[in-house]
Amino acid sequence: MELKEPLDAAAVAELIHARVLGNARRMVTGINEINRVREGDLVFVDHPKYYNKALHSAATTILIDHGGVEVPEGKAVLVCTDPCHAYNTLVRHFMTPAAWTGELPNIGADTVVHSSVVVGTNVVIGNGCTIMPGVVIYPNTTIGDRVTIHANAVIGADAFYYKKRAGGYEKMITAGSVVIGDDVEIGAQTTIDRGVSADTRIGAGTKIDNHVQVGHDTIIGRNCLIASQAGISGACIIGDNVTLWGQVGVPSKITIGEGATVLGQSGVLSNLEGGKTYFGSPAGEWKQKMRETASLARLPELVKAWKG
Amino acid sequence: MELKEPLDAAAVAELIHARVLGNARRMVTGINEINRVREGDLVFVDHPKYYNKALHSAATTILIDHGGVEVPEGKAVLVCTDPCHAYNTLVRHFMTPAAWTGELPNIGADTVVHSSVVVGTNVVIGNGCTIMPGVVIYPNTTIGDRVTIHANAVIGADAFYYKKRAGGYEKMITAGSVVIGDDVEIGAQTTIDRGVSADTRIGAGTKIDNHVQVGHDTIIGRNCLIASQAGISGACIIGDNVTLWGQVGVPSKITIGEGATVLGQSGVLSNLEGGKTYFGSPAGEWKQKMRETASLARLPELVKAWKG
Amino acid sequence: MELKEPLDAAAVAELIHARVLGNARRMVTGINEINRVREGDLVFVDHPKYYNKALHSAATTILIDHGGVEVPEGKAVLVCTDPCHAYNTLVRHFMTPAAWTGELPNIGADTVVHSSVVVGTNVVIGNGCTIMPGVVIYPNTTIGDRVTIHANAVIGADAFYYKKRAGGYEKMITAGSVVIGDDVEIGAQTTIDRGVSADTRIGAGTKIDNHVQVGHDTIIGRNCLIASQAGISGACIIGDNVTLWGQVGVPSKITIGEGATVLGQSGVLSNLEGGKTYFGSPAGEWKQKMRETASLARLPELVKAWKG
Repeated sequence: MELKEPLDAAAVAELIHARVLGNARRMVTGINEINRVREGDLVFVDHPKYYNKALHSAATTILIDHGGVEVPEGKAVLVCTDPCHAYNTLVRHFMTPAAWTGELPNIGADTVVHSSVVVGTNVVIGNGCTIMPGVVIYPNTTIGDRVTIHANAVIGADAFYYKKRAGGYEKMITAGSVVIGDDVEIGAQTTIDRGVSADTRIGAGTKIDNHVQVGHDTIIGRNCLIASQAGISGACIIGDNVTLWGQVGVPSKITIGEGATVLGQSGVLSNLEGGKTYFGSPAGEWKQKMRETASLARLPELVKAWKG
Repeated sequence: MELKEPLDAAAVAELIHARVLGNARRMVTGINEINRVREGDLVFVDHPKYYNKALHSAATTILIDHGGVEVPEGKAVLVCTDPCHAYNTLVRHFMTPAAWTGELPNIGADTVVHSSVVVGTNVVIGNGCTIMPGVVIYPNTTIGDRVTIHANAVIGADAFYYKKRAGGYEKMITAGSVVIGDDVEIGAQTTIDRGVSADTRIGAGTKIDNHVQVGHDTIIGRNCLIASQAGISGACIIGDNVTLWGQVGVPSKITIGEGATVLGQSGVLSNLEGGKTYFGSPAGEWKQKMRETASLARLPELVKAWKG
Repeated sequence: MELKEPLDAAAVAELIHARVLGNARRMVTGINEINRVREGDLVFVDHPKYYNKALHSAATTILIDHGGVEVPEGKAVLVCTDPCHAYNTLVRHFMTPAAWTGELPNIGADTVVHSSVVVGTNVVIGNGCTIMPGVVIYPNTTIGDRVTIHANAVIGADAFYYKKRAGGYEKMITAGSVVIGDDVEIGAQTTIDRGVSADTRIGAGTKIDNHVQVGHDTIIGRNCLIASQAGISGACIIGDNVTLWGQVGVPSKITIGEGATVLGQSGVLSNLEGGKTYFGSPAGEWKQKMRETASLARLPELVKAWKG
């Protein structure tokens, strides 16, 4: 999210009771997700595994739970015990509250919005689109030209993103949005969550079947095919021309390279190189997995022979 | 379900043409699910595997398809050839027909119900709740405080519970309801079926993602996390602080202990002890399953070496 | 689809710029799916694997991408470089555009259609049906008697059927419909796609749970049980009395024989004979798959012993 009124790092620190290391005059112009940060952005990090990535990203202000880090030249580091809670405080301070009524969506020529569709404020829909009955489009969604969204799909639901706290959970505020490219088709009952601080993106020409889940901040490339009941978690990067068959599962923060194909019901557990075909749970290269599966039929007699 | 006008066992037997063994004067004050029965309740049982459990439960009237059982002291046993059909007859006799119009839901302060939401009769929604567009709440649902239900979710649909009969199925009437605790969040397109004779319960603080299925009479504890596209069948008991990752499947009548974690796409086939992490289909302890999966890569050469 | 104004093969060829082999006077009275064709129908085929099936089916006009085939006696063969594109051209020429307003659905006695239901034109609903809130029924759907459709289900969405073209996809136009038999129950959030040129059929007495996907042109028999989150792709044939447990996946063009049972989370990869029980991914006979799964627990030590 962009800050309509940028503040310097010292002023931001004051809002969240953080300690400033480094350049306290560094201006904060936005809050962003680690893979999308630009100069002026603040990013938060609360796991040592990601400290270096955050500190050396394009982000120029880093909100962190550890004061013993080296501050890169010209950047500001804000230290507090709970960066997620501080992030929520900042988002609450800066975000425009979303709403659902009062304003007609900004709709292009030749676009048909059927009955029983509910659209939040600040939604833009391009030309030649068809929005079928029962679709719900959360505030701040942007939809390109010639997009079809089938019945009862939900665009822009909240991220499923909670931090464990004593006696319950703190929910990360979903401050981002969804951006859908031209010529995209989205199936009935499919859900696309909006980004937490960035946006969830569906590339031009991509076709998504029914009952698919796309998590927060995930980026899906161009001309992908995502078959029914596939589930893609948050913060994934799916390259162009990727095909996911039915019921495939992709956990969060996974990258799938351009042109990869993942066969039905596979469970992806690590990044997948482009241009190959994968199968199984955990997913591996298709031919090797098929060999393993075939040899499994011999295992009972093998075990028996070995024990005998 | 509670009976507004309690009857004694003899009178109930007459309604369903059953034979009474034991205490014919035993009052029947409710009809209930085997794991929730209290004194005064009638329970039905049509499988020898569950005869003893039903006869020695807290239920004081037992509807059964076998006359040769020993009647526990003070209880009534009603014998008929088809307890499920008899159960349906009783439910039809005692239940208040559900309806969808005429009555505004009972809604707490600071609760927002968006447009295109449809709510049945006798629904109670607490304070500070948000019901997003397109949500459907079946009659008799009770929702606590600070609950968010995302777009197009369905609360209180019928149980998927049929008995095979010559030439088709007899549907068990879904006479129970859904009770949702405080601070629960329910994702877009998620469905929670209501109980057959008891209720389906979601414990306080539990967070459920999009596209999740929760079956009839299932009890989910407090502060659980249920990720997208997980499916939990009917009559399960999920302890507090359980985490189910995406696309996990749990068949009916399974118990998962407090604090257990079940990794993505796992298929649970038996009860799981609390405090442990599980993986695979059928699900087992995570480390063992990972070892098995890793060794699978060696199986093709093992089979080849053995055959050679 | 039936053609309201039948044309001869020569006239059809002219519409799509095809070359005619064989009987140019052969009348074309319909366009149909390969498994349903009747005399008078046109069928298209663009893969050598299916050439013979198409040429020797009951279809009397065959649209094909290869001119070197032998034309069966009395039939017409239309040769063009892109039969799918030509098919779309024909469908656009002959189909009545579907619509959503202006016309009340044709509803039988004792049928209840709840609020927030949206129904397209040319929909027929029988007697004694219940259509719950939020259901969307696309144009041209036919529903029998005593059918219940639960909240937010979608009947008749488009097929997920695309042909790769330079720089994107060409979508096959979904010109068929959905036909639902008597006494069918369809769960909340379930989606049934309509057929491409034929129709998708749900046999009488079949019960479908929540979150199920049924693809285009699939035929489901009588008295089947399809549990939650199962996914059946397009052009499948599911026999009578088949049971699919939760989260089962069935890819396109699969046949499952009468009375087969497929256990939870199984992934079907080939046709399944009737009367048996299957498990696993890929699905095999249940007992063999259970043996393999059980022996898998011994594999790590087997690999270790072998290496040592």
